[in-house]
Amino acid sequence: MSLPSLRLKANAERRIRAGHLWVFSNEVDTAQTPLTAFEAGQQAQLETSSGKPLGLVCISPNNLICARLFGRDTGHLLDKSLLVHRFKVALSLRERLFDKPFYRLVYGESDLLPGLVVDRFGDYFVVQIANPGMERVRDAIVEALVQVFKPQAVLFKNDSGARKLEGLDSYVEDAYGVMPETVALEENGVRFEAPVREGQKTGWFYDHRANRARLAPYVAGKRVLDLYSYIGGWGVQAAAFGASEVMCVDSSAPALDCVEANAELNGVAEKMAVVEGDVMAALRELKGANERFDLVIADPPAFIKKRKDIRNGEAAYRRLNEQAMRLLNKDGILVSASCSMHLEEDRLRDALLGASRHLDRNLIITERGFQGADHPLHPAIPETGYIKALFCRVTPA
Amino acid sequence: MSLPSLRLKANAERRIRAGHLWVFSNEVDTAQTPLTAFEAGQQAQLETSSGKPLGLVCISPNNLICARLFGRDTGHLLDKSLLVHRFKVALSLRERLFDKPFYRLVYGESDLLPGLVVDRFGDYFVVQIANPGMERVRDAIVEALVQVFKPQAVLFKNDSGARKLEGLDSYVEDAYGVMPETVALEENGVRFEAPVREGQKTGWFYDHRANRARLAPYVAGKRVLDLYSYIGGWGVQAAAFGASEVMCVDSSAPALDCVEANAELNGVAEKMAVVEGDVMAALRELKGANERFDLVIADPPAFIKKRKDIRNGEAAYRRLNEQAMRLLNKDGILVSASCSMHLEEDRLRDALLGASRHLDRNLIITERGFQGADHPLHPAIPETGYIKALFCRVTPA
Repeated sequence: MSLPSLRLKANAERRIRAGHLWVFSNEVDTAQTPLTAFEAGQQAQLETSSGKPLGLVCISPNNLICARLFGRDTGHLLDKSLLVHRFKVALSLRERLFDKPFYRLVYGESDLLPGLVVDRFGDYFVVQIANPGMERVRDAIVEALVQVFKPQAVLFKNDSGARKLEGLDSYVEDAYGVMPETVALEENGVRFEAPVREGQKTGWFYDHRANRARLAPYVAGKRVLDLYSYIGGWGVQAAAFGASEVMCVDSSAPALDCVEANAELNGVAEKMAVVEGDVMAALRELKGANERFDLVIADPPAFIKKRKDIRNGEAAYRRLNEQAMRLLNKDGILVSASCSMHLEEDRLRDALLGASRHLDRNLIITERGFQGADHPLHPAIPETGYIKALFCRVTPA
Repeated sequence: MSLPSLRLKANAERRIRAGHLWVFSNEVDTAQTPLTAFEAGQQAQLETSSGKPLGLVCISPNNLICARLFGRDTGHLLDKSLLVHRFKVALSLRERLFDKPFYRLVYGESDLLPGLVVDRFGDYFVVQIANPGMERVRDAIVEALVQVFKPQAVLFKNDSGARKLEGLDSYVEDAYGVMPETVALEENGVRFEAPVREGQKTGWFYDHRANRARLAPYVAGKRVLDLYSYIGGWGVQAAAFGASEVMCVDSSAPALDCVEANAELNGVAEKMAVVEGDVMAALRELKGANERFDLVIADPPAFIKKRKDIRNGEAAYRRLNEQAMRLLNKDGILVSASCSMHLEEDRLRDALLGASRHLDRNLIITERGFQGADHPLHPAIPETGYIKALFCRVTPA
């Protein structure tokens, strides 16, 4: 195994030694090891300025993050054998924590596989690749999955926006077997069918599992509104946990068809209503019609996709949550979630506080939820943490 | 009701209008309303510089935080009637969330009762008062508890260090009925007896309830070490959740007697061992004896009591967690907790990362836990959030 070297400038090894996995292009000693000499996704040995090995990386020559470490042990290339090992290590955590095979099996950097996400739906696996290092070993990824899991099907859902920045094309493709249009999963004892081929991301958001589980004591006997419901992750679980009535709002008709199918699956269809349309418009209409709810869930798509959107995004979270709060009964619960990596939890808290003061309500936070254990946080990489869910009790001031 | 006024300087009302409940002494217009004119704990109407009412406060004339708002509605003094109302509002949240009457019933500012803590153990109530405003209405507090709950006994556990700063004396006193030495409670289905008269704080730490519940899937069949065990909150639950073996370390012999009694209560005594002594010394000894554990819980007393202790305290968390990590088996879990309000979660994360790198281990965070819903966070007062619990998976690098 004679890999080319990627040499760092003096002192640039500190962050890597301290635990980070990313190399920025301005940290590379390009006189010694020019990035232009590498192919996209090529593997290399990362070295200090004095030539000491730090580990192995995949290179993205044209990217600001020009290399990602996938192992500190320089003896193991990123190949089928290492993938099998990493999958087994990742699996042993998930098997300890979840009694059924429905979870994020691989979560990128946190599972020492930068740029790779694998969601498991029983014997069906949906794979997302975000950088050329993983793209180059895509066949090995499938082979390793087949070896460890003997799956029915593996799907490449390689259509994320991040791929463009890495010069990768967008495609959805059966990698092994034939993936059906929808696959079954169970979360917190509630059954769902997720549209893995046509839906958002991998078709399902396992990241809010633990936060949805927290709904149970809050919703029993209550009237619930689920905003940006997608296929009913929150809303159908609220109904299954004993809500008296649940209304799901989303702009996607196919997503709302899934809500209805998922409600049927759990025998709660008669308690569910769906509203197709823009969420902010729906909030105005509901207010106009004097509708009130005991619990409102506001879990929008990321309002802040890039750092430059922070100010506008924070204002959007404030607007959404304030309008949602106006629909609460006198003693109500607002579940305010965000999947924007760039939105700090305390900024979301500020938005909620500001909204409550503007409406002259008293607000306290009873639950601070984050992503579940199948999306572990890498302690050196704050970007691996992105989910927030604040449960707020809102009462008269 | 003609209350004296406490007038703020120009623009000093902003923080209060934005949701905060505390007034700092340098914000008061002492020319108009000198703080020296107030008795400790006296109630007053808080006003803007132009005389607009903001709400009602209790005054601590000699304290940096010289007034605390207990209501924005100026029509309700802090008296038995308001206490009954606040207790009922607080109770309705707890009754929704907990199926048995064991919880923090009142959590100070978050329940709009600054300086008051009430822990409930069924029909037994332990009260902590932290400022003169609450001290002046202590009889009304007891009367309100009697009216709402018809308790067996109410105990004043008024021996916290914070009282001295407020010029209050330290005492433990039966306020109603006679509080027994220990009272029964249940947490996550596990039974305990807590030493309410002689133990730490109110005798029990309800704040980690939700974090202890998370132990279940991690401990089944595992060997567990519980550092600073106190009376076994973590350790006995780990045993009850199926750990194969649990060792509790604490410097207090009476606390370890309680561990043994609590283990007996749950039929897990044969799996439990107790070690009396200094935790850091015990960690060295266990390392020397080549003992290893699958899961170590490090939940020390607050290493950072004041802002000036932050640097030393962070170093202490680092040392403790690094030594704890050294006792883990190859694929182990470290549960690292902190009750230091001044320790930010990401500083604890940094300490854990630093320790793992120093030992050449890989560390990821699978659970980010905070205080339970009976300790709600006040969104304007970060000091109301203090508990952290990070579950870390530690594997070979």
